[in-house]
Amino acid sequence: MKMDAKLLDDEKAIEQIDKEGEIRVISNYGKALADHIKQLPTYKGAGAEEVVITGMGGSAIAGDYIDSWLSPTLEVPIYVWRDYDLPAFVDNKTLVIAISYSGNTEETLSAASLALKKGAHVATVSSGGELTKFASKNDLPLYPVPKGLQPRAALPFLLSSASKALLDQWIIGKKEWADLERLPDQLQSTLSQILPSVPLEKNESKQIAVEMFGKMPVIYGYEKYQCVARRFKTQVNENAKAPAKFEFFPELDHNEIEGWDGKDEILKQLYLILIRDPDWTFPYRDRISITMEEIRPWAGGYHELVTSGSGRLERMFDATLRGDMASIYLSVLRGIDPSPVTMIEALKKKLANIRRSK
Amino acid sequence: MKMDAKLLDDEKAIEQIDKEGEIRVISNYGKALADHIKQLPTYKGAGAEEVVITGMGGSAIAGDYIDSWLSPTLEVPIYVWRDYDLPAFVDNKTLVIAISYSGNTEETLSAASLALKKGAHVATVSSGGELTKFASKNDLPLYPVPKGLQPRAALPFLLSSASKALLDQWIIGKKEWADLERLPDQLQSTLSQILPSVPLEKNESKQIAVEMFGKMPVIYGYEKYQCVARRFKTQVNENAKAPAKFEFFPELDHNEIEGWDGKDEILKQLYLILIRDPDWTFPYRDRISITMEEIRPWAGGYHELVTSGSGRLERMFDATLRGDMASIYLSVLRGIDPSPVTMIEALKKKLANIRRSK
Repeated sequence: MKMDAKLLDDEKAIEQIDKEGEIRVISNYGKALADHIKQLPTYKGAGAEEVVITGMGGSAIAGDYIDSWLSPTLEVPIYVWRDYDLPAFVDNKTLVIAISYSGNTEETLSAASLALKKGAHVATVSSGGELTKFASKNDLPLYPVPKGLQPRAALPFLLSSASKALLDQWIIGKKEWADLERLPDQLQSTLSQILPSVPLEKNESKQIAVEMFGKMPVIYGYEKYQCVARRFKTQVNENAKAPAKFEFFPELDHNEIEGWDGKDEILKQLYLILIRDPDWTFPYRDRISITMEEIRPWAGGYHELVTSGSGRLERMFDATLRGDMASIYLSVLRGIDPSPVTMIEALKKKLANIRRSK
Repeated sequence: MKMDAKLLDDEKAIEQIDKEGEIRVISNYGKALADHIKQLPTYKGAGAEEVVITGMGGSAIAGDYIDSWLSPTLEVPIYVWRDYDLPAFVDNKTLVIAISYSGNTEETLSAASLALKKGAHVATVSSGGELTKFASKNDLPLYPVPKGLQPRAALPFLLSSASKALLDQWIIGKKEWADLERLPDQLQSTLSQILPSVPLEKNESKQIAVEMFGKMPVIYGYEKYQCVARRFKTQVNENAKAPAKFEFFPELDHNEIEGWDGKDEILKQLYLILIRDPDWTFPYRDRISITMEEIRPWAGGYHELVTSGSGRLERMFDATLRGDMASIYLSVLRGIDPSPVTMIEALKKKLANIRRSK
């Protein structure tokens, strides 16, 4: 496959490949999110001893972002659960937030139903489908998200809706809510640097796309933003239809780094991306610098994505948008419409047929 | 690099490469673990509302195994934490189990010290080093593990010692302890099929090693045994000094599978391993079968590792030992002594020098 980097500065060509307008949705994140936050419903809360956020893929990762954002301050533990069932500890003191963008994710519907049987407090986040019917039938709080998006493009909305459930249930307070209210401005500020109108020479996301073309991206994050590295990886999978992997510090220093010691030929086909937080001081900074010095020479390319923003949530989303847009630009370079996820949809159809015939 | 598969049936040649005798340690797991379990100390317990297991690498994953083993039945939540700090919810109702095989892992020492400041109940698992001094100084329960092993080779001992802490603290009971007491027999039964004395034609671990030689292993597990796929991946890193990645069902059906749709050339350099549980029925079986049918043709090789054993813990360790031995056989084929982890040790030394000079 040949690459034409100039394509990324041709807005019309981009539009022709991005047929369903994934970039258009992202371009409008700031205003859309500000509007969304204002119109979220309020439900009476009861509190909880722990929170389980259950969902899959683009919906589940909203839970990971909430956990990463809140774990340094929150006195209540948050678990993210990606399966049909629930852990045994879920009981009438647990708040279970079931997130399914489509509302039809079979794992999430199964877990939500089980949560109700276990007597947990259940809140739902969805744009429609079976989960909204389930909420309505059982008189459960339903926090909506805008319809008609790819689930992965709904991340800021899913996160805000789930956070509203936490606010209503007294799990978070005004301070955390203020973080969220500042987020739309940050999104727009980041986007102004990486949208198609910004030329390649000044556009970090375009540069990353050009550099990772033809290679397999390996994204290294750090524990607190593990979800950001994971998101970047899954966006490469879903938008660009390409393989990728992610790991995180400090854990990767205890095993993953040895994978570079054999100096295997395949390493030259890996494109290494480090998501670096400007706040890293002791004990992270030295550790990460030394590690990257040792392994960088063996990779097929390297990029440091330095996050900006005034708080943890803002920095997480700054890096997220840079990665999201890089994955879309990669799809453009590959001549692939980023929106359709053919394999996921085919799998769902085959499964539905099997379920129906049983 | 050329491969000589016959090497794997030459026990003397294997011994010459496996200089520090990693295989000898593993061969003796059954008896050593049975002895270890019998001689574990007992400390008076107080119970806890939640458990945090903190550690890194080969020590942390013992926590993941405990969580996977117990989450279907345990009424107390277990978190595994891989960082210097602790989540904000840790308080005087939390049991924190700090695991560091060496006792000198800086992240774990930091987290253990913080746990004490937060008033949590703290138990320690270690073979020596600073963590044992910390336990002794603060009069904390110390559950020992055999000395002189590679941390990753200590997994069954670390898991048993941490489980004894859970038993002493009334978190688990006789039923779970009985699972553990049956484990040594299962280990030996699995090992009898995969040790060097079993020839390649009947030895699954040798076969996997031959097939993954020169390729990058991609290990797919399922949510409940996510840790087993992760362990296999890190064993390839640490023993064979080769890159690898892992993912898990059902989550991978929501993003990772799209990474196969571009049919990139690099996919032919990936060796796909599915860890399959014989108990998979609805809703897993169809989902996993359909997924593998779709993606297998694009991989550079494929292997199904079917677990055996009578309970979840036994099946987890059956797959673990098959993966562990495969990673060691791969190191033999690559002519690399599996024991030394040069990059990890070099990093630790450089960090210690920086810490000292500050």
